[in-house]
Amino acid sequence: MNKEIYDVAIIGSGPAGLSASIYSSRYKLKTIVFGKLPGGTITEAHMVCNYPGIENISGMELGQRMLKHSQNLGGEYLPLSVVDVKEENDLFKLITDEQNEFFAKTIIFATGTDRNKLAIPKEDEYLGKGLSYCATCDSMFYKDKVVAVIGGSSAATMAAVMLSDIAKKVYIVYRGVELRGDPTWAQQALERENIEVIYQTVVTNLEGEMRLEKLKLSKPYKELEYLNVDGVFVEIGSEPNITLPIKLDIQVDEHNYIVVDKEQRTSIEGIWAAGDCTTNSNFFKQVVTAVGEGAVAANSVFSYLTGKKGSGY
Amino acid sequence: MNKEIYDVAIIGSGPAGLSASIYSSRYKLKTIVFGKLPGGTITEAHMVCNYPGIENISGMELGQRMLKHSQNLGGEYLPLSVVDVKEENDLFKLITDEQNEFFAKTIIFATGTDRNKLAIPKEDEYLGKGLSYCATCDSMFYKDKVVAVIGGSSAATMAAVMLSDIAKKVYIVYRGVELRGDPTWAQQALERENIEVIYQTVVTNLEGEMRLEKLKLSKPYKELEYLNVDGVFVEIGSEPNITLPIKLDIQVDEHNYIVVDKEQRTSIEGIWAAGDCTTNSNFFKQVVTAVGEGAVAANSVFSYLTGKKGSGY
Repeated sequence: MNKEIYDVAIIGSGPAGLSASIYSSRYKLKTIVFGKLPGGTITEAHMVCNYPGIENISGMELGQRMLKHSQNLGGEYLPLSVVDVKEENDLFKLITDEQNEFFAKTIIFATGTDRNKLAIPKEDEYLGKGLSYCATCDSMFYKDKVVAVIGGSSAATMAAVMLSDIAKKVYIVYRGVELRGDPTWAQQALERENIEVIYQTVVTNLEGEMRLEKLKLSKPYKELEYLNVDGVFVEIGSEPNITLPIKLDIQVDEHNYIVVDKEQRTSIEGIWAAGDCTTNSNFFKQVVTAVGEGAVAANSVFSYLTGKKGSGY
Repeated sequence: MNKEIYDVAIIGSGPAGLSASIYSSRYKLKTIVFGKLPGGTITEAHMVCNYPGIENISGMELGQRMLKHSQNLGGEYLPLSVVDVKEENDLFKLITDEQNEFFAKTIIFATGTDRNKLAIPKEDEYLGKGLSYCATCDSMFYKDKVVAVIGGSSAATMAAVMLSDIAKKVYIVYRGVELRGDPTWAQQALERENIEVIYQTVVTNLEGEMRLEKLKLSKPYKELEYLNVDGVFVEIGSEPNITLPIKLDIQVDEHNYIVVDKEQRTSIEGIWAAGDCTTNSNFFKQVVTAVGEGAVAANSVFSYLTGKKGSGY
């Protein structure tokens, strides 16, 4: 058992969590970050081109830089998952997957979301080699190329429209009979000359030598069994990572996002949340929104601890 | 007259405006940014240590990098002030201080705030040389030093408490008889052993050779006419820059912040706002919150234009 009492334990080591750590440390709060993947899901982005001030950086490097930044300011980081939290003696006791125990006065959840996956062979293998879960992140790499978007929701049609300005040709491969979600995006997708929708079809296999080259379709399209593409964008939704918040009975919205107020407070006293897993920032899941929310959460924690604990923070 | 029609005109060239420009350009929107000071008020920060991923950078350089980033993605920038906006033929006509006219389909206000100043001699001269308007930004430079905070509001007492963890000694110089604002902060400030409040006193002069060395007080304190300090933090509030929004009758709150919704929309159709001048991000005025809001605003503009204009964006 770790006998130190942290001012704030941050669960999640992506941009939101690391930004919260940076701000907490600058407020002199004793801070620890837990997360299996330093940098979080941004590390999946081949290249990040929209973090203002850094024109081009791999997601992996950006995540590493943020981690180092937080550590150099005094924040601790452990590559562990927190699997349970209990309230004990006016503190939170965090239990990790390795059964370590940590005590903290406050918690910030920055657990992000998990992209829904196709759940077909080689999906992980082609990630960053023609397969992406983020059109906003990676569309620029497909100038004048042929791409496919898998899915039929707003996210998928928006991705297809965005891609159609850059790529030569965009296929939408969708299992349904009609595009769904926001009708604006669906209509746009249908009107664009270089977008073609393949309905009632799913992708059953991914193939290619060094990188993704073709998609095997569940039924032939224009008599072809395979669709040749330079890239595929999987846009079949994502789910907030809320196993632990649910266990603690923290309020979530109808799509399982953690409900937070302007201060990033959750429904449970002493617990805040920041980043992709929350209801803030208009659900726009970007590094810039995550770091903003992380900073606001840390600022709120600082106010809370200073108010509640007198000068003892 | 510039006959091009911009998809979005961004008024303000700080982190919020430049982030909005970066995102707009990546959405292929024809984008222009107006602002006299590229980088905005962050350029006043001697060193920025809390922008995740960049450990230490001067505010000036961070601003320049963001500007270059936005320009390299295709966003235009003009060092002009927009002094008037009129609606004309379903477009906004922007008129600059040099009487140029520009037309845009949408506007994002990212006009930031102006720090209230002491309005005493040499204030501008000592900026970054012992004088700061931002304790969160610059407190780290005063480890074991003697500093003064001017003001008695929440911002001032919070700054003093934050500084008291870092500096050896913190004076609060306040014209009132009792600290005001959030009582938590005021109480904290009074309880800290290394904070000393000098009431009913204002600073009338700033003195020092290469950098600020002492403050002349309006009346002697402990028989001394001058207070020797390594730094002074001016925390006498700030005001959103809303001359133009007010002229357009955009809704503002009781403190003159532009009221925005989750999408960063203002009360006028076709106009968004982002950054320090808005009611979002819990009023936490930081680069990270500004870039987040700018991105959300650009995303909203993109949705709006694509929806409204068919495929014509």
